[in-house]
Amino acid sequence: MAVKTKATRAELIEVAQGRRPADLFIKGGTVINVYSGEFLKQNVAVYQDCIAYVGDSEAAIGQQTKVIQAEGMYVSPGFIEAHAHPWVMYNPISVTGKVLPLGTTTTVNDNLFFYLHMGAAGFKEMVKDLKQLPGNFFWLARLVSQADYPGEREWFNQADIGELLELDEVVGTAEVTRWPLLYNGDPFLLDTMEAVREKRKVVDGHTAGCSYEKLNSVVASGVNACHEAITAKEAFDRLRLGMWTTLRNSSLRPDLPEIIKMITEGNVNTSRILMTTDGPHPAFIEKEGFVDGLVRQAVELGIPPMKAIQMVTINAATYLRLDDFIGGVAPGKKADLLLLPDLVDFRPDIVIAGGEVAAEHGELQVMMPEVDWNKYVVREPFSFSKELLENTNLYCYPHMYPSEPVPVAYFRSNVITQRKDIELPSINGYTDLSNHEGLMQAVLIDRGSGWVSKAILERFAINLDGMASTYNTTTELLVIGRNPESMAKAAARVHEMGGGIVIVDKDEIVLEIPLTFTGMMTTDSSFDTAVEYHDELLAAMQKRGFPFHDILYTLLFLTCDFLPGLRLVPHGLYEVKTDEILLPSAPLSTFKCGIKS
Amino acid sequence: MAVKTKATRAELIEVAQGRRPADLFIKGGTVINVYSGEFLKQNVAVYQDCIAYVGDSEAAIGQQTKVIQAEGMYVSPGFIEAHAHPWVMYNPISVTGKVLPLGTTTTVNDNLFFYLHMGAAGFKEMVKDLKQLPGNFFWLARLVSQADYPGEREWFNQADIGELLELDEVVGTAEVTRWPLLYNGDPFLLDTMEAVREKRKVVDGHTAGCSYEKLNSVVASGVNACHEAITAKEAFDRLRLGMWTTLRNSSLRPDLPEIIKMITEGNVNTSRILMTTDGPHPAFIEKEGFVDGLVRQAVELGIPPMKAIQMVTINAATYLRLDDFIGGVAPGKKADLLLLPDLVDFRPDIVIAGGEVAAEHGELQVMMPEVDWNKYVVREPFSFSKELLENTNLYCYPHMYPSEPVPVAYFRSNVITQRKDIELPSINGYTDLSNHEGLMQAVLIDRGSGWVSKAILERFAINLDGMASTYNTTTELLVIGRNPESMAKAAARVHEMGGGIVIVDKDEIVLEIPLTFTGMMTTDSSFDTAVEYHDELLAAMQKRGFPFHDILYTLLFLTCDFLPGLRLVPHGLYEVKTDEILLPSAPLSTFKCGIKS
Repeated sequence: MAVKTKATRAELIEVAQGRRPADLFIKGGTVINVYSGEFLKQNVAVYQDCIAYVGDSEAAIGQQTKVIQAEGMYVSPGFIEAHAHPWVMYNPISVTGKVLPLGTTTTVNDNLFFYLHMGAAGFKEMVKDLKQLPGNFFWLARLVSQADYPGEREWFNQADIGELLELDEVVGTAEVTRWPLLYNGDPFLLDTMEAVREKRKVVDGHTAGCSYEKLNSVVASGVNACHEAITAKEAFDRLRLGMWTTLRNSSLRPDLPEIIKMITEGNVNTSRILMTTDGPHPAFIEKEGFVDGLVRQAVELGIPPMKAIQMVTINAATYLRLDDFIGGVAPGKKADLLLLPDLVDFRPDIVIAGGEVAAEHGELQVMMPEVDWNKYVVREPFSFSKELLENTNLYCYPHMYPSEPVPVAYFRSNVITQRKDIELPSINGYTDLSNHEGLMQAVLIDRGSGWVSKAILERFAINLDGMASTYNTTTELLVIGRNPESMAKAAARVHEMGGGIVIVDKDEIVLEIPLTFTGMMTTDSSFDTAVEYHDELLAAMQKRGFPFHDILYTLLFLTCDFLPGLRLVPHGLYEVKTDEILLPSAPLSTFKCGIKS
Repeated sequence: MAVKTKATRAELIEVAQGRRPADLFIKGGTVINVYSGEFLKQNVAVYQDCIAYVGDSEAAIGQQTKVIQAEGMYVSPGFIEAHAHPWVMYNPISVTGKVLPLGTTTTVNDNLFFYLHMGAAGFKEMVKDLKQLPGNFFWLARLVSQADYPGEREWFNQADIGELLELDEVVGTAEVTRWPLLYNGDPFLLDTMEAVREKRKVVDGHTAGCSYEKLNSVVASGVNACHEAITAKEAFDRLRLGMWTTLRNSSLRPDLPEIIKMITEGNVNTSRILMTTDGPHPAFIEKEGFVDGLVRQAVELGIPPMKAIQMVTINAATYLRLDDFIGGVAPGKKADLLLLPDLVDFRPDIVIAGGEVAAEHGELQVMMPEVDWNKYVVREPFSFSKELLENTNLYCYPHMYPSEPVPVAYFRSNVITQRKDIELPSINGYTDLSNHEGLMQAVLIDRGSGWVSKAILERFAINLDGMASTYNTTTELLVIGRNPESMAKAAARVHEMGGGIVIVDKDEIVLEIPLTFTGMMTTDSSFDTAVEYHDELLAAMQKRGFPFHDILYTLLFLTCDFLPGLRLVPHGLYEVKTDEILLPSAPLSTFKCGIKS
């Protein structure tokens, strides 16, 4: 990996020897040395974007050198989020603008929705443009989507993915959520992962719910890491089998108090343990912070501050094979530095990213780039006109066999569903839900006009007439409700907006959230916008009976193919455990009118 | 790094699931889990050259599976020597045959003398042939020699070195002993090291005696690691500056008891600390062992066995960026495994290398390859006929300025010399040592017939009439003695042998050691031969007054250009501290007769 720095080695050597003045000199702070595990009172000299010197000397101070008095402060390496999802309503720019002042100077990001909508060419162009971002913005490249669809393998082809893996900014491959593919030795995945190893990059993993016995196969397939442990036992299983083990505390799964026991209740080696926020929703970041929040909570839970900081700095950098470049305070490393007033709150007074003061007292001090997100996108929002969506039959669940009970997806939690078989009456071929309060229709409509999948949900939002959302892991159009007319209206409105979330009571639109960047993100550079959208959505849904805390992940994963229960996926109504399609998707064309040809 | 394994991932997955029988099954042992830092009673299934499964199941046992009952045994990852010099009289094959039964399954080797005598093409051919060796035999590629010489930069050119760095077996660049080049930002070295980083390989270092302040520059230049600390303070300096810090216990410098205090007397993070034997002489390995000896002694000195083993397994593998491949007991890793009866002696009952039982109870169980070492060599032993060496003036130190004292290299230790200026008489232009017992001549003669360098030594071997040796870091002909006739005879005999070491009393040859492979190594595959040669040489030298313990390193480094004091190098008599040539080398042609033309 040739991560380029502005400063040359020759210049850094001159600064280290006091023969060339530093640009920035951090004086008298207590350096958090994550290599040795010590706290050391030392100066740090910075030249351009790199650290040139760490020690007692002040020889690098010149007339133009900006000296920061750091007495009484801790000097920490910038925090690293090794498993980020920069698309939870917020976008790469708005989330960076939020988390950089909180001390996260490096994020390693999932490219799923960008790649789905841009393909290799558009994605590469965006990666290039985002090099203007302050801090380090790396990527992990997906090998498959989170819900199999017609043409997936053609879209995620080895040539295009191989091209992405050539980029310095792409440090490896992203989690394969559909890990049974690995368990079963899928040749495409094994080949691609072999190619990643040849480039000495990383193979990130996702083995939710995978037993120790099965993990052996996934590890044998070549996966390097997993962040899906939800108990200390599961975390140990992963660490013991040689995986870099990432402890997660996300909005969906705030599991740190449980999994951290693997450290607090024993004497485990922590050098291969990391922490991640795994794509929290905007309001969670607003309230709990980002990587700083992980460190804060880990220390509250009894982890020594040094170990907690190592987990989000040098451990992450070593896993990523970027430890030549980031993760510690040493000469030649990128000058990503935090001035921390204490080891309790871990809120930096000053954040230095690439040698620049990027934030002070939580306020961003650097310009963020402006990009036209949709210029990279090759998929059009909808391949059909909105009239198609006004056909209410589209939203009704077919009922061909009156004698048979209907499979229903009952929500046990935010994201886990359970199959229930319920006897239901039918009206002209469709299932009649009118006398069953709490049951509602859900349909997933291919924005490319190919197919529609249908399900019936229970315990979702008892009073919801209609909602439509492109915010889901397929980014297709998900429509849910008890009232087909309301559903139709919500769907049509999302079509007009070109992506987003709409809620309709009877025939009144009560909430509109435009997410016109891939259907997942606002194009707005303000993080606050994403927070407002989230809060409005959650309030509106809870008002209509949504019983859980994380609506975005409920929407996201209802359409995935890797979590337990019934799922609404491109191929139809899918039972994960049995790997069975209970009701195949129908061609959208059967709903006639309005398809562009 | 695409280290190829015989087993495919798909096959390993089948074995992990019990759908394909393991070749080897280690049952009921206590696995030393270096990832988590635990001791776990588990089975290990091996297929071909890799580990397929670690856990409680026995499903992988088939009818043909060889089951090893390991109850009461520890199952350790094979030991890794990350900084080896396979040329201390022994050669790559003989030393591997010795250390493999001691549990060292991976060595990472210095290529200096191989490259000096073979160039890129010959070296690559040897590397290819040595792939037949059991265990893993990796290389680090030198960027410069250990004693600058005319044409060095042409020989160590970027194109050739770049070619070597493309090889999977070459994991990075080797120590730059002449570290002031890095301190001064030598452009060739900085460029080459940048290229190594681009390949995501390692930049090994050597910063003997470098102060903390100066280390900042060397680290800024891009060096990743150092093994030269001789005090706990020096080790801390290196670790704190972000270097992988390797604790050394070699025949020359058995420093472990001192430097290990960095761990035993504090609470340092050990995950970036390694250990090395750094090329011990044959008898030292015979007596103390190899990496097993490091672990044994570290534990005696108070290091917990787990930490000691981590230092020579997973820490080393992670530094080398080979942790996908070696360093721990996990699925997908190479099956390099040791069955240890205890955590005191660390002498394996069984050594498994690449899935094969390579040794049992200290006895090698595998065939070693046979190679004709000299087929790779492009340098001829001598470019002149031996008559030239019979000219006794060749061995006398010139004395042009009778009024001036003569600089003498006084041996303070095995390898450290000190300049002394002594008033000495002269006879016909040469310095007369006849009345100064203990002073003797030393000359270094270019085997390529270009030059001769001269020095006067004190406290070397008071009763030595004459010795000649190609065993020195230049691999040129080093001749030392008090009697020019004896020196001439020894030199002529080494010329006849084509390389080696000869001692002469008056006009009688009393010791002959043929080292015809580059002048450093025996071509003999028996390690015992190297031990005998060493013991005979040391005894003979001590009998003649040599006051130190490690004659091979005394000979090796008298001709280097990086250790304190006066040195005899190709450019002449060299004072390291002042970087000054006190007596330039003379053209060998001035000694006329016998030069081939």
